[in-house]
Amino acid sequence: MNQARCQTQLIALDWGTSSLRAYRLGAAGRVLELRSLPWGVMKLPEVVLPENSGDDGKAGFEFAFEEACGDWIRAAPHAPVIAAGMVGSRQGWREAPYLSLPIAVDRIGSTLSTVHTRNGQIVHIVPGLIENSALPNVMRGEETQVIGALSMLDFGKTPSRAEQQNEQNEILIGLPGSHSKWVQVRIQHREVQSHIEHFHTFMTGEVYAALCEHTILGRGMPTSDVNGDDHAAFDRGVLVPQTPAGRAGVLSTIFSTRTLGLTGELDGAGQREYLSGLLIGHEVAALQDLLAEQRHRPVRVILVGDAALCVRYTRALRAYGLDQIEVAGQATERGLWQLAIAAGLLSCTQP
Amino acid sequence: MNQARCQTQLIALDWGTSSLRAYRLGAAGRVLELRSLPWGVMKLPEVVLPENSGDDGKAGFEFAFEEACGDWIRAAPHAPVIAAGMVGSRQGWREAPYLSLPIAVDRIGSTLSTVHTRNGQIVHIVPGLIENSALPNVMRGEETQVIGALSMLDFGKTPSRAEQQNEQNEILIGLPGSHSKWVQVRIQHREVQSHIEHFHTFMTGEVYAALCEHTILGRGMPTSDVNGDDHAAFDRGVLVPQTPAGRAGVLSTIFSTRTLGLTGELDGAGQREYLSGLLIGHEVAALQDLLAEQRHRPVRVILVGDAALCVRYTRALRAYGLDQIEVAGQATERGLWQLAIAAGLLSCTQP
Repeated sequence: MNQARCQTQLIALDWGTSSLRAYRLGAAGRVLELRSLPWGVMKLPEVVLPENSGDDGKAGFEFAFEEACGDWIRAAPHAPVIAAGMVGSRQGWREAPYLSLPIAVDRIGSTLSTVHTRNGQIVHIVPGLIENSALPNVMRGEETQVIGALSMLDFGKTPSRAEQQNEQNEILIGLPGSHSKWVQVRIQHREVQSHIEHFHTFMTGEVYAALCEHTILGRGMPTSDVNGDDHAAFDRGVLVPQTPAGRAGVLSTIFSTRTLGLTGELDGAGQREYLSGLLIGHEVAALQDLLAEQRHRPVRVILVGDAALCVRYTRALRAYGLDQIEVAGQATERGLWQLAIAAGLLSCTQP
Repeated sequence: MNQARCQTQLIALDWGTSSLRAYRLGAAGRVLELRSLPWGVMKLPEVVLPENSGDDGKAGFEFAFEEACGDWIRAAPHAPVIAAGMVGSRQGWREAPYLSLPIAVDRIGSTLSTVHTRNGQIVHIVPGLIENSALPNVMRGEETQVIGALSMLDFGKTPSRAEQQNEQNEILIGLPGSHSKWVQVRIQHREVQSHIEHFHTFMTGEVYAALCEHTILGRGMPTSDVNGDDHAAFDRGVLVPQTPAGRAGVLSTIFSTRTLGLTGELDGAGQREYLSGLLIGHEVAALQDLLAEQRHRPVRVILVGDAALCVRYTRALRAYGLDQIEVAGQATERGLWQLAIAAGLLSCTQP
């Protein structure tokens, strides 16, 4: 019991729309234990409370929280608890208002919201970010992954030639997925200070799923990705947006998924790979336009996310001339650890 | 009985994927009777034939055909029968191979395929069109609507100023819908001859439905269009693609449907209208790019399709500077009539 108490430095929750992941972190943020539960913010268990027990509609959160880490807290009652993701949305446990861009990365950790559980435990909730541009953009959870990815950058190393030329460096962090985020970060080397300046959202993953499952394009396709074996079909799709035919835009080019099947050029599995490449290609091509317009020239691109998806995006980014690409693992738990440090929750521990 | 036989000049079928419409046409193509049946090519009734009756897998077509117009044929056994749409696809009753672009409109009617029913009736099937460009494009059924729309143009009138300047006129025929088609037609006034030169497909309608019904964007939206009352939200969406933010492309801009809800700028019905405008705006903006690249400068735009949808497209086209817009009704039945004339099926009747 005593040993566990010494070991647990932080209980960190990645609480999204569809799932809840709980990390028990030890010294220097090392993952001691991980639990995955199906209780995302939109999929909480129904809890029936006794009458007059003062149900505030949050009983599902309390129950899921207890299941996720109640025993960890009892074993290490002084360990702080931090949570990121949709748990801080309006439909979450406690709204953690969005912070506006541009923002210094350190400020995020100093602006946590808190909720008290029935047992008196404080849970610190990470705010999301909003960019109030012509079309507003929001993220929740990804800011934590960005901070985790940044914490892995080796700022102590000898500066590269590109870095020597600029005292400021621009880094692009890509979080491919259901809703891909591309986050533009500026790092001032003298101050070892990072600012998140802009970000963009592409609904590529969710659109891909909807097209495969709920439109004519999915007819004849296998029901899941075939391990990305058909690189030729994927790459063919990736390149379309940079051809004259690509000017027609994604609402038009996707129809070629079907016509290349009708003309016998692609089989069902090939159509699926082609459509994946086509959508990711449109995303990367549009991203390059946006970066050029904002004169953002990233010296490095860091990808965070599912490994197979990062492989796809790496192929596509290379096809569009972005080749300084790294993939960062464990970004969520590292980000939660960094945020807890910035919030002063781990004052007794070494970062 | 005799009277009906005199009246019926042509039995014309519009036989698509999800429905079958049968027209009994009289002199000059006047619609005497119309039947709508739910038996599209992908939704045929299951017919169980007696053993050894030589089932060729086409019994569903025979059955639906008999239900649609068997009595008309018995009453007017000499009236020819013509059919357009997916009935001529590989999954149809008889494949009518695609004709390649560019093509003189008159040639389509002289290239009909035929199928004989068990009762010995000949059904003439209209071919689809294919454009073997970098991304192949196909249509089936829309070629008939294009011919119908062209037949309504008043070539006998005094030429307009624009027409005087060019002996050739470029006309753009738009068929908005689940898969919108935009067909570029060149008309040589001396020869009163039309050529279909190019066409483009946009899956706007099907993508809109998939996004509303199967992605996060539909959350909080009403389940059907609210009669397009919220013009402000629709128009706001239409204009996005021509702003700097629109450069992000449709995979990105659609996310603003949600964020404008989160920031309280659009309610659920407004989000639905906004998304409709946004997608149609992206379609029209991309179409303009394609026309500019092909140096196609339409003097007239003719829309064929659902009336409410044509109103939406008219608003969007005007916002992008295309304002010589007409809406053509009854294009399908008129097209089938014209094709029957071109095929020589109506040699005894006046066009």
